[in-house]
Amino acid sequence: MNNNSYYELYEKETPKSSGEYVRIKEEELRALVENIFENNGLSKEHSKIVTDVLVSADLMGISSHGVQRVNRYIMGLKKCCVNPRPEIKVVREIGATAVIDADAGLGHIAGLKAMDLAIEKAKTYGTSLVLVKNSQHFGIAGYYALKAIEKKLIGVAMTNSESLVSYVNTVGKTLGTNPIAIAIPKASLPPILFDAATSIIPVGKVEIYAKEEKELPHGWVLGDDGKVISKDSKKALEMIKNNRASLLPLGGIGEEFGGHKGSGLAFIIDIITGVLSGAAWGIHVGYTVGEKPANVGHAFAAVNIESFMELAEFEKRLEKYIEEIKSLRKIPNADSIWIPGEKAWYTMQTRKKIGIPLHKNVCNELNKIALDSGINERLNCL
Amino acid sequence: MNNNSYYELYEKETPKSSGEYVRIKEEELRALVENIFENNGLSKEHSKIVTDVLVSADLMGISSHGVQRVNRYIMGLKKCCVNPRPEIKVVREIGATAVIDADAGLGHIAGLKAMDLAIEKAKTYGTSLVLVKNSQHFGIAGYYALKAIEKKLIGVAMTNSESLVSYVNTVGKTLGTNPIAIAIPKASLPPILFDAATSIIPVGKVEIYAKEEKELPHGWVLGDDGKVISKDSKKALEMIKNNRASLLPLGGIGEEFGGHKGSGLAFIIDIITGVLSGAAWGIHVGYTVGEKPANVGHAFAAVNIESFMELAEFEKRLEKYIEEIKSLRKIPNADSIWIPGEKAWYTMQTRKKIGIPLHKNVCNELNKIALDSGINERLNCL
Repeated sequence: MNNNSYYELYEKETPKSSGEYVRIKEEELRALVENIFENNGLSKEHSKIVTDVLVSADLMGISSHGVQRVNRYIMGLKKCCVNPRPEIKVVREIGATAVIDADAGLGHIAGLKAMDLAIEKAKTYGTSLVLVKNSQHFGIAGYYALKAIEKKLIGVAMTNSESLVSYVNTVGKTLGTNPIAIAIPKASLPPILFDAATSIIPVGKVEIYAKEEKELPHGWVLGDDGKVISKDSKKALEMIKNNRASLLPLGGIGEEFGGHKGSGLAFIIDIITGVLSGAAWGIHVGYTVGEKPANVGHAFAAVNIESFMELAEFEKRLEKYIEEIKSLRKIPNADSIWIPGEKAWYTMQTRKKIGIPLHKNVCNELNKIALDSGINERLNCL
Repeated sequence: MNNNSYYELYEKETPKSSGEYVRIKEEELRALVENIFENNGLSKEHSKIVTDVLVSADLMGISSHGVQRVNRYIMGLKKCCVNPRPEIKVVREIGATAVIDADAGLGHIAGLKAMDLAIEKAKTYGTSLVLVKNSQHFGIAGYYALKAIEKKLIGVAMTNSESLVSYVNTVGKTLGTNPIAIAIPKASLPPILFDAATSIIPVGKVEIYAKEEKELPHGWVLGDDGKVISKDSKKALEMIKNNRASLLPLGGIGEEFGGHKGSGLAFIIDIITGVLSGAAWGIHVGYTVGEKPANVGHAFAAVNIESFMELAEFEKRLEKYIEEIKSLRKIPNADSIWIPGEKAWYTMQTRKKIGIPLHKNVCNELNKIALDSGINERLNCL
């Protein structure tokens, strides 16, 4: 924390093989992706929002939720069920709460509007809860939670998602990875950002392990015979895709290590974001490229620190707590003691300087979409 | 669910050896415990509240948080730092939020008042957040969350607690087990009640394993050399008590299985309940029997379902979701598919009929306290 140069070139997710990756400047990537969305029917404003969420994920080292999703979103727009021109409507608004209908547009658009409303309401009432229904994938939950930081509020964002995770003591893909993000402002940067799926790992991690031919750790994936799958990550990925395996909830299989806790959290988040919002839940939550609108549900909340305590006092207390954490003794082989959100933050600073590493396949895919969309600009993928 | 007789005599925590336990009628236990608190300086009203939380825990099969805590509370009252006659004050109240000073009284007293206020505020504003500082141990978090159910609201309760859990990638007792409880009303009983510590297990589980001389599973407890302790549960308990070991957060050691998620959740809950409320945090949170007031912090929130959706529609949708969960295929050896809170609920029904199993040591201890408190009544501990 005190030695900023230490983190100067830190990356949370370092490209393994430099030959497979190319560094693209943030601005260049933004310009192309914005263009792609605009040329596929989105308004200029909405294109900017979706691009900002995706590029932020890449900057923060969460490439699974970055521009590699563009292809999927464009397919969803072309195939049927993503609405390029959604009219985002507040369909219910009472006191510190509201329900927003995303009109089947990309979740980023309604998500940002809902978070802004949650922030406004928290400034008035001290806290708030805004739900979104009839939405699509909204990218990283942390993006929205961080919006509250800009106003020195605490921000919360949750979403459900297509089913991939097993419910405790059962087999099959029943729950989404249903993440929750909570951002808390600090006196100095970076802010605290807790952003976690309620499964042990996201499916993107199995994809990376399969691609890199790494051994799958025992305890991430459950076969439909009720046995944990390990070692063969390619086979595990294949089985997940063919509905013959699922991700395990945080806490793992059964109850011995708390699988009922991860599964219970995912279930509760689904009830708030899906059941209570009017969206789909569990196995009914759709995918961006599907036969019908995905009907994803989100939830956003904010907390006004000054309703409880002077901001300066809160920041001073929090700084002291973090100092105490930073002075703890590490377990052997741990790289560093991290506060939630630090890794993502330092990765972002690094990538703003040296560019975003894109896998060449993703880079070429974006150029192909640009070509198909009648755009002249190209990324330099060599 | 459909076959109620199946659950008729279900108990979540069945007494292992019938010779060591005695069944006490709920009413009898309540009467004695209320008397004990009254004779140790609490008002009649406060004695009833504390007793209700403790006996509810025993009814629900969470004996670690039940009447076995009476001795500790009485010691805290006698020794120094638990205030028998707290004046619970709302010290800050803005819109949907408030801060309450518990005046160093037992946490149950301020907790109930804070939850009631959170419920009232959620009825007005749709949601709410009430924090409590300068408090003590408040028993089971689920008790407060369930209060919201009675009004058909969603209830949330969190607390910090004395440090027992290691922060990810570090050794030592830094975080509390910092539980979160969320209760959600249903059309029919039981309600949903998610109530989970953010550690893999509570320390009470190590105590039970040590007492029953059971092998400690690998992955619950971390030694201060950074290595996981397994097998010898007596040694593990001894080491925890002597600050030479800690509980691992949900997700376990390191980040491979999500230890940063459990640790991060505990940290965030501590920031809300401790830092933001004005209470202590982390290593500064005291114990009931200490040299100074424990300064525990709690947080309570409620959500008014009808701000988002007609209650009947919500209940219908939730019922459908639960049916879907109940029809899943079990993994081999799983006893049943449980919705969060069902086990506790059926245990409560059972124990209201056949009595609460008290370990004879606890039973005799209560009689000893009754004697010391000048009470004539005794439990039948034979």
